Amino acid sequence: MSETIPEHDAARQKRTYTLLRRLVRKDSRAGVWRLLSGVRAEDTAEAMEHLTWSEQRSLWSTLGDTDYAADVLGFLSERTTRMLAEEMNEEDLVEIIDRMEPDDATDVVASLPLTLRERVLDELRDDESSEVVRSLLNWPADTAGGLMSPRAFVVPQQTTCGQAISRLQQHHSELESIYYVYVVDAERRILGVCSLRSLLTRPAKTPLTSLMSRDLIRVPPTEDQEEVARLVARYDLLALPVVDAEGRLLGVVTVDDVVDVIRDEADEDMLLMAGVGGVDASSVFTQSWHRGGWLLATLAGGILAAEIIGVYEDTLKTVAVLAGFIPVIMGMGGNVGIQSATLAVRGLALGRVQLGGPGRFMAREAQVGVLLGGLYASLLGCYALIRFPGEPLIAASISSSIFLAICAATVLGSAIPMVLDRGGADPAIATGPFVTTLVDLIGIVIYFNVARTLLGL
Amino acid sequence: MSETIPEHDAARQKRTYTLLRRLVRKDSRAGVWRLLSGVRAEDTAEAMEHLTWSEQRSLWSTLGDTDYAADVLGFLSERTTRMLAEEMNEEDLVEIIDRMEPDDATDVVASLPLTLRERVLDELRDDESSEVVRSLLNWPADTAGGLMSPRAFVVPQQTTCGQAISRLQQHHSELESIYYVYVVDAERRILGVCSLRSLLTRPAKTPLTSLMSRDLIRVPPTEDQEEVARLVARYDLLALPVVDAEGRLLGVVTVDDVVDVIRDEADEDMLLMAGVGGVDASSVFTQSWHRGGWLLATLAGGILAAEIIGVYEDTLKTVAVLAGFIPVIMGMGGNVGIQSATLAVRGLALGRVQLGGPGRFMAREAQVGVLLGGLYASLLGCYALIRFPGEPLIAASISSSIFLAICAATVLGSAIPMVLDRGGADPAIATGPFVTTLVDLIGIVIYFNVARTLLGL
Repeated sequence: MSETIPEHDAARQKRTYTLLRRLVRKDSRAGVWRLLSGVRAEDTAEAMEHLTWSEQRSLWSTLGDTDYAADVLGFLSERTTRMLAEEMNEEDLVEIIDRMEPDDATDVVASLPLTLRERVLDELRDDESSEVVRSLLNWPADTAGGLMSPRAFVVPQQTTCGQAISRLQQHHSELESIYYVYVVDAERRILGVCSLRSLLTRPAKTPLTSLMSRDLIRVPPTEDQEEVARLVARYDLLALPVVDAEGRLLGVVTVDDVVDVIRDEADEDMLLMAGVGGVDASSVFTQSWHRGGWLLATLAGGILAAEIIGVYEDTLKTVAVLAGFIPVIMGMGGNVGIQSATLAVRGLALGRVQLGGPGRFMAREAQVGVLLGGLYASLLGCYALIRFPGEPLIAASISSSIFLAICAATVLGSAIPMVLDRGGADPAIATGPFVTTLVDLIGIVIYFNVARTLLGL
Repeated sequence: MSETIPEHDAARQKRTYTLLRRLVRKDSRAGVWRLLSGVRAEDTAEAMEHLTWSEQRSLWSTLGDTDYAADVLGFLSERTTRMLAEEMNEEDLVEIIDRMEPDDATDVVASLPLTLRERVLDELRDDESSEVVRSLLNWPADTAGGLMSPRAFVVPQQTTCGQAISRLQQHHSELESIYYVYVVDAERRILGVCSLRSLLTRPAKTPLTSLMSRDLIRVPPTEDQEEVARLVARYDLLALPVVDAEGRLLGVVTVDDVVDVIRDEADEDMLLMAGVGGVDASSVFTQSWHRGGWLLATLAGGILAAEIIGVYEDTLKTVAVLAGFIPVIMGMGGNVGIQSATLAVRGLALGRVQLGGPGRFMAREAQVGVLLGGLYASLLGCYALIRFPGEPLIAASISSSIFLAICAATVLGSAIPMVLDRGGADPAIATGPFVTTLVDLIGIVIYFNVARTLLGL
């Protein structure tokens, strides 16, 4: 494996998965261990997610309570973790959790049913680590507190570079990932931070206080993970200290966890926008249920549209050709609305909108609406004129309706996410079914009223 | 600033921006410098992006060719960078580029028009860095080669821990971010890697070859940035070495660049899906032009829909009530199609689809289609029965059309991204206008044919 240039990484993973499944089905424990000796825990976890439940159980019993099993467990999805944990006997589960880093252990414990959770915490070998896990459980998983590892490399303010290095040499096995050295006072309040590299490049006697940076970015444990990710990304940090209200260091969030958050958040936003948030790992039935729920907005909108069109039935009977343009008015409005809403949602998520102000963003969208509306009103108007040569008023109705519908779509599409954001909801839920349905309805009402007025019906 | 817990980070940025703009408008150079002495270059760059062009120019002339200006330039958008670079006199531009890290310098040089680019490269003070920038320009910006920094910390294989540390102490100022020490042979081929931490925690005489890890993930310079991001995220790497075909080290991609890539890629995918890819920083007019181009698909689809509905004009004249259900058939089909396409696009981007195979994904979607179709066929059928009591055949037409349209939407919505991916295109372009339009048309054809058959028209 050490020779692989991972240009074919996906192919290699697929091969690993296929081979692993075959060995598990043959129940070849020795074969599984031989294969996995060359496979990283991350890849085993991913392959495992794609096995059936009975294959997962069989593989898990082969892995037992080894360090490798503990590593794999740290990379499994919450759902698989919970199912396996409930399946294992308690002794093995405790043994595995004992082998994990406290932040990973906390994720496993958090996935357990409450009664089992308490029993496991009581049985953990190391009282201190059980204490740490208990304290980490206090923070929701999507906050800085939920992401942080409680183990930071902390030294008192009198420390010199040389002393810091020898401390590091004594304690390194306990510290998951050391990127920075935090200098704290007697109360564990952070005074400053030094990079590991700066320790190395100064004489041993240099006091850390003379080289540390005091301009330190830090967050409270309640900080939302999206903001944590934004700070780490913006300031190119490797780790972000989490402090309590008195400025005492509680733990650090490291960049590898933030990378996962950024991937997950963007993913979540995109799925939310399409009305498929959180459905990915679930069964076909659960997935349909969730997606179906979301589509109720579309159904309700569609029925409302049918009722509205019903009101204009006489108009339609007189000028049946109007029905043909319902789809284009709806389609253009809906898609323009989605464009505006997507720009608004991403602008809010990446902080682009806030700086210029929501008003400025919406004004800009309105201008785009006028331009796009004008463009498509002309194109569709020309088409209608050519298609129905003797009927300039039909062309005029269609043309002015599409103009108004597009303008309304840009304004509504950008306004709805702003309103949701102001109200504390996730703006991503505004897009997809919701915006299109609303814009569709408005488009239809505009269309028939304009047509009736112009055609004198 | 050192005391700020950045809970109010967004508010602080907004204040900085407002103050900066006021000082720039008053042309208070001393005021600007006083303000910026407490502001990070990242924040100044962001604030600058929101100034008008004349404000930007004025601020830029205040910053001059200082280190601070070089820092800010590294964080500006490509567009602003290019505009400022073309505006500056060549001497200042060269002076600033000389102050930048080679990978940032390359981005600036790459944004220049070709003739200016050559002149700037010729004038760079340091021939070696001009050479480095030239070699980095060979790689497209969205590949490992385009992301990498050529400066890696490399030692020959006989090196001991102590020797590595003293080398580090001599060269540290040149090395942007050192996370790993790469052990290479005489040809600069990578043999293994040690973490900085592992150097510290061993006796000085330990040879690096005895502690280095040989199981090394590496990529060729042509590797796509998305794959680079996937590897860094998956294996929690801080830096990923880039090697040529002979395994010689060309440079390293560091995690901070990968964090930006992950944010940008997810963002890009989401904007592409809504047909607003790449429009964000452009003027209202350019933006409308791009968005309008995308919407042509919708327009064409809409006109086609009008033509198709025109074919069934007689049917509509006989049963005008059918027109009312065009929106709900289109809306449900379109939204279900978007859901499937979104899951497919994200599944492909995160590698979820590939492992199980596209067939499995589509089969699952088809099952969801049958369930959702059944659910909504019943709901809409009941509504139609109640609304038009004497007309069971109308209800049956609507109900079976929605069932078929939803099934078609799940299959098409998931198939189109797979086909695009297989063909080497970005699957994200399949969603948005394209999928909805196609699914809409199919829905209408299904609807009228089912209705005509059942109603015997």
